[in-house]
Amino acid sequence: MRNLIGIAGLKREEIERLLDRAESLSAIMERENKKLPTLSGRTIVNLFFENSTRTRSSFDLAAKRLSADTVTIQASSSSTEKGESLRDTVQTLSAYNPSAIVVRSPHVGAPGMITRWTDASVINAGDGKHEHPTQALLDAFTLRRRLGELDGRNIWIVGDVLHSRVARSNILALTALGASVTVCGPPTLIPRQIEELGCNVSFTLDGSSEADVLYVLRMQNERMEEDQSFIPSVREYARYFQINGKRLGANQLLMHPGPVNRGVELSPDVVDAPQSLITEQVAAGVAVRMAVFYELLAGRGPDGGAAKEEAAQVQGVKSTL
Amino acid sequence: MRNLIGIAGLKREEIERLLDRAESLSAIMERENKKLPTLSGRTIVNLFFENSTRTRSSFDLAAKRLSADTVTIQASSSSTEKGESLRDTVQTLSAYNPSAIVVRSPHVGAPGMITRWTDASVINAGDGKHEHPTQALLDAFTLRRRLGELDGRNIWIVGDVLHSRVARSNILALTALGASVTVCGPPTLIPRQIEELGCNVSFTLDGSSEADVLYVLRMQNERMEEDQSFIPSVREYARYFQINGKRLGANQLLMHPGPVNRGVELSPDVVDAPQSLITEQVAAGVAVRMAVFYELLAGRGPDGGAAKEEAAQVQGVKSTL
Amino acid sequence: MRNLIGIAGLKREEIERLLDRAESLSAIMERENKKLPTLSGRTIVNLFFENSTRTRSSFDLAAKRLSADTVTIQASSSSTEKGESLRDTVQTLSAYNPSAIVVRSPHVGAPGMITRWTDASVINAGDGKHEHPTQALLDAFTLRRRLGELDGRNIWIVGDVLHSRVARSNILALTALGASVTVCGPPTLIPRQIEELGCNVSFTLDGSSEADVLYVLRMQNERMEEDQSFIPSVREYARYFQINGKRLGANQLLMHPGPVNRGVELSPDVVDAPQSLITEQVAAGVAVRMAVFYELLAGRGPDGGAAKEEAAQVQGVKSTL
Repeated sequence: MRNLIGIAGLKREEIERLLDRAESLSAIMERENKKLPTLSGRTIVNLFFENSTRTRSSFDLAAKRLSADTVTIQASSSSTEKGESLRDTVQTLSAYNPSAIVVRSPHVGAPGMITRWTDASVINAGDGKHEHPTQALLDAFTLRRRLGELDGRNIWIVGDVLHSRVARSNILALTALGASVTVCGPPTLIPRQIEELGCNVSFTLDGSSEADVLYVLRMQNERMEEDQSFIPSVREYARYFQINGKRLGANQLLMHPGPVNRGVELSPDVVDAPQSLITEQVAAGVAVRMAVFYELLAGRGPDGGAAKEEAAQVQGVKSTL
Repeated sequence: MRNLIGIAGLKREEIERLLDRAESLSAIMERENKKLPTLSGRTIVNLFFENSTRTRSSFDLAAKRLSADTVTIQASSSSTEKGESLRDTVQTLSAYNPSAIVVRSPHVGAPGMITRWTDASVINAGDGKHEHPTQALLDAFTLRRRLGELDGRNIWIVGDVLHSRVARSNILALTALGASVTVCGPPTLIPRQIEELGCNVSFTLDGSSEADVLYVLRMQNERMEEDQSFIPSVREYARYFQINGKRLGANQLLMHPGPVNRGVELSPDVVDAPQSLITEQVAAGVAVRMAVFYELLAGRGPDGGAAKEEAAQVQGVKSTL
Repeated sequence: MRNLIGIAGLKREEIERLLDRAESLSAIMERENKKLPTLSGRTIVNLFFENSTRTRSSFDLAAKRLSADTVTIQASSSSTEKGESLRDTVQTLSAYNPSAIVVRSPHVGAPGMITRWTDASVINAGDGKHEHPTQALLDAFTLRRRLGELDGRNIWIVGDVLHSRVARSNILALTALGASVTVCGPPTLIPRQIEELGCNVSFTLDGSSEADVLYVLRMQNERMEEDQSFIPSVREYARYFQINGKRLGANQLLMHPGPVNRGVELSPDVVDAPQSLITEQVAAGVAVRMAVFYELLAGRGPDGGAAKEEAAQVQGVKSTL
């Protein structure tokens, strides 16, 4: 595996290898000293064309904990504003010889395009409504830790599926791991032919009490404030789709990619309920992103010598796990 | 000591222990290689809801010089803008397993509240008009270096005491160390019952020539530009309270928390006068913040093993001091 | 050499020593592990009063690859906005005891002034229309790698020479290295008496086919959008001065400091032509800036002991080159 552009196309074994690696790394994250020498002397570029404090800081910390140097480029301060093309930006950053470029973009397909212009590994940190593969991996990681294997588990994804790259990547990852996934929301927020991804569709919460997991999506502000064509009102939406204390069973798990709009898609009480995995999801983010860097970068060098040196180092890390 | 929320509540011995530690660390800061391995592999989060280049870079550098990894969250780019609550933000950041969260907030009491939501040590980098404890510690450190023990020293704090967390923390720290403190300014800028903190009050500079130290506060722009209810005009304020060459004695020391409004609270000539400790205050900031991290974090581990390992390391560092 | 304020005043040997050092460091940048311990425990401050993602990240990465800690101050978030003077800012930052301050400023002469207020080495990262010495060094480095010695080479610098610190520094560096330099552009964009720097002037591209190198300057947006007094229109400018496939010979090299306005000073096709050195220029930036830090800082300590220790380290590094 050289790049991580999406969950689409990944085999079950590949996903499981990443989750297993994250499991080992997660043990290290419990230690006082969280640092591994794996990527010492390598550079990782974070190229963010959308603002995302959570995702950016999670990738940044994952890279630092593997001893990489990081360069963060925020679109708002980058020269793309001066009319530089994406390609020019990528070629410029590639001249720094980075091992990986982590990219978040409002444009579907940007990470895939970028792979053509750089020798660095490209990691998609979210592209438009398309995919957000590390989010899906950290969600799968969190669930697997709690439930064991996901085969046959019943997972409902509730909310604005139409605009959600998180939903899309999660449907692909969770079904690949053997779970049964149902997406649920008002018809205006469920994309047509979403069933082709291998999930069921429900336009009401009826039947959600059978689910092992309720995965609730964030309602985007722009949908709530400006755009009346998707939901008539926040109040109306919450009435039918908000997950609250009555709708969350005592044995059901609750997930959310954050940040939560308390009182919209979730009632305030369930956010901190014992069933909530929300904080565990965030913690999983660092371990999973370390695992992605590790699998894509460790052991891969520009020449045999470096690759061998690196492999020896990897061996050393494994033996400490 | 687990958190540093304010000077209030600290015993004289605790303050002196921090200052002594800063003294040892300050010697290291004179060396070419300013780095200690103390916090290697640990993460420190800087969570700033107000912009402050000085304080933020000082904490950041202190953490780096102790080999910690740092994650800086500026409120302007954080998801609190999207309506995420302070609690959600803190719980999210806590999922990164940081050793400490440094927080600056416009809201009085925010750092104290945060301690309830995280296992990390919480360090107050300024909360509303309440406290700014590391500023008071670095001021005490700077003064102690110049004057020796502060018992019986006469220190005047001049200016906008009403809106100043720096004044509040300094009154508490300096009186705890045995100094006599007088606050001075127009009645509109002196809070009622400030004497209860253990200081004297003067509405004129008469008598300030007896002081060993004039500690001059920054006049906030909003007071000068918009709000006529506190001072009639900058000119009028300067006429009665500006410290200038005539009002600063040859043997008096001058302090200011920066940045200075030259020509408002200080005349341009005194800023760089031999009596001015302003640059020494900034330099002290890094050593004092290192000392705070050191005292709160070194030797404290999540389990006995780590704590022991850490203690051995601390021992090693001590022996090099 | 203590500071790098401009190419003006540098001897040919000094420029060549920097380029030789960059050559050694560049070899390390090809390795998997790009990190050297040279500046471990030292602090480098990046003080940017103008936004420049490219230059800032290049300096930042160069410092990190030499193991320095970096503190980056963006003017937009610094207290100079609150009326703090440049001098106060520099004195504040100097209190951190940095080894170097890298400064970019819209004001001609700011870096030179700063040297009076700090013990740190000062490196000019661009000051107004004056100089941008590291850009000229990386350009010379890139050219020398491709062409060998520059004596007698014929180099044309094309475009808005009037507003260009890049042009100025390049004229000085390239002529010092023995090249013949011609500046070319409309009379409104060529400064009077530029010949005094030792270059030729041409108001048309006639004769440019004789050049070994066409170095094309970026057309600033403000010139294109608002200000009609320099060029009548972008279209008109491009008609006479744009370098395109017809005007670039098969054996001529093409350079540009980036970011490119495709379709203005360069036609889109030539940017990625085999003659283009644009990506190599960016890559050279990190090695050249490492060389500048190395030459200014390594081996220079506050006392003999540190200097000796450092010298031993430098020796160690040299032996690995």
